[in-house]
Amino acid sequence: MSNQAINLAEKFATFTEQWSPKIVAKLNDYDILIAKVEGEFTWHNHPDTDEFFMVIEGEITIEMKDGDVTLGPGEVYVVPKGKEHRPVAKKEAKIMLFEPAGCAQYGETIQPPRQKN
Amino acid sequence: MSNQAINLAEKFATFTEQWSPKIVAKLNDYDILIAKVEGEFTWHNHPDTDEFFMVIEGEITIEMKDGDVTLGPGEVYVVPKGKEHRPVAKKEAKIMLFEPAGCAQYGETIQPPRQKN
Repeated sequence: MSNQAINLAEKFATFTEQWSPKIVAKLNDYDILIAKVEGEFTWHNHPDTDEFFMVIEGEITIEMKDGDVTLGPGEVYVVPKGKEHRPVAKKEAKIMLFEPAGCAQYGETIQPPRQKN
Repeated sequence: MSNQAINLAEKFATFTEQWSPKIVAKLNDYDILIAKVEGEFTWHNHPDTDEFFMVIEGEITIEMKDGDVTLGPGEVYVVPKGKEHRPVAKKEAKIMLFEPAGCAQYGETIQPPRQKN
């Protein structure tokens, strides 16, 4: 790895796809990813891992069966392993994720994806 | 864990100590920590793990033998496992860290700490 800062704004400027996390760095066997999200993802869970969300720009709501969490810039949340959740964003939001390398984006999908594209 | 966003600004407001990372969330066997830093930390390395830095506010320089990296808000960097480094901040900066739970802050210390307090 070169000795160079990773500027998230510059990395976000390199792609337009939504719901398509990009790896920006690796930490041991974890990936640090960024994604642009808008609309509703699908209900799913990750049976083997927690999932970290941080909002960089915009706002997302992580819907869960026992209560939703809304995150704005500078706010973080960890969805516990195995917990069903559905990320939703009314407008495009930019997020950062931490998760084990190779983690399936949809985990165990409960419903088919309903993405706004 | 309650279904509540973790607001980093609110968490930073709960302490004043520098170079004293606070756990704000856990992801599997990793900690997500925040810290206020100012002055020079000590040269050290973490023989068993990479270390993730993100600047939330202010600016830090991660000094390394083969070249320094300066990070501002929204910039991240991963110091590779075993690499000697020394974080430095001219003014107080607020950072977020991601590392294995129980990771020794000083790792293998090369020199005694020289903190401005």
